[in-house]
Amino acid sequence: MKVIADVMVLPLGVGLSLSKYVAECEKVFAEAGLKTQLHANGTNVEGDWDVFFAAVKRCHERLHAMGVPRLSTSIKVGTRIDREQSLEDKVRSVEARL
Amino acid sequence: MKVIADVMVLPLGVGLSLSKYVAECEKVFAEAGLKTQLHANGTNVEGDWDVFFAAVKRCHERLHAMGVPRLSTSIKVGTRIDREQSLEDKVRSVEARL
Amino acid sequence: MKVIADVMVLPLGVGLSLSKYVAECEKVFAEAGLKTQLHANGTNVEGDWDVFFAAVKRCHERLHAMGVPRLSTSIKVGTRIDREQSLEDKVRSVEARL
Amino acid sequence: MKVIADVMVLPLGVGLSLSKYVAECEKVFAEAGLKTQLHANGTNVEGDWDVFFAAVKRCHERLHAMGVPRLSTSIKVGTRIDREQSLEDKVRSVEARL
Repeated sequence: MKVIADVMVLPLGVGLSLSKYVAECEKVFAEAGLKTQLHANGTNVEGDWDVFFAAVKRCHERLHAMGVPRLSTSIKVGTRIDREQSLEDKVRSVEARL
Repeated sequence: MKVIADVMVLPLGVGLSLSKYVAECEKVFAEAGLKTQLHANGTNVEGDWDVFFAAVKRCHERLHAMGVPRLSTSIKVGTRIDREQSLEDKVRSVEARL
Repeated sequence: MKVIADVMVLPLGVGLSLSKYVAECEKVFAEAGLKTQLHANGTNVEGDWDVFFAAVKRCHERLHAMGVPRLSTSIKVGTRIDREQSLEDKVRSVEARL
Repeated sequence: MKVIADVMVLPLGVGLSLSKYVAECEKVFAEAGLKTQLHANGTNVEGDWDVFFAAVKRCHERLHAMGVPRLSTSIKVGTRIDREQSLEDKVRSVEARL
């Protein structure tokens, strides 16, 4: 099952500079072979359900191993069986209406 | 790895009455042995990472099998290594401050 | 315009114990006369659009005044013009299907 | 108070093709003078708290006027008093770590 997802990982208890943790998760997603698009409030991901969620788990494991005591992650995950759709398709379909 | 999570499943393309689909996911979570608390904007869940995410996947699979063409699901998932915490603990710690 | 909403306020840069900040926002919502239901991953709110969002703003202002340097808040907000619905209606309509 | 936000508007009860509604909200944000970045799972916005939330309300009002019976919107909103930050800053600070 294919997913179009959006993930935002929030490390708690490590101060205000979170970018190194977000970058670590980006690396995990890339290692998993997922297509990603970093944006200002998260990362859009396109790929297989199991590969995606295994990567999110590995991201949590790795950040905890880096000393992050608590993580609060927000995920939006979309699946559809009516037709194929990519990250680019979603943006293009809106831009075509502007 | 234990999670405290919140899931809201939004079926698209099936009109405005979504409760039967939400109920189906509740059944999936119960069958998986997860602790759940239904609320007005989702379901809080406490349990093992893998069990939880396998249940979310099964929920998507089952709703698609029921004819839902598209699903948009929001998940908040928290993990922590500093201490144990339950769904009830989280509510009680706030109520103690009111 | 009436809303059914869910709010989760995450204070960053103040350590791991967040309940006193969440409680402060609960007080703000109560002062605003909003109907609320605290749950393990946020607070469900029923009320007028303007009253609700003014309260969320006041919550941010008050937490910053308490010394919270950074806040990341998640809001789900639903509006509908087909019929009236309360927080309790939403839960009951799912429970009736279980 | 300045916000960095992410908004995803989900119209319910109007079938599966949602892009025209998303585009309408993009127009509302642009008319409000907000800085926006459309992405595959929402729109990032930078601007003043009141201007932003007034635009989200106008988006709901306009979509309901277009016949959308029900809307479910997800908003992430961040505020900080420790320093200034733009949408671009947030992406750059992560990319610098990759």
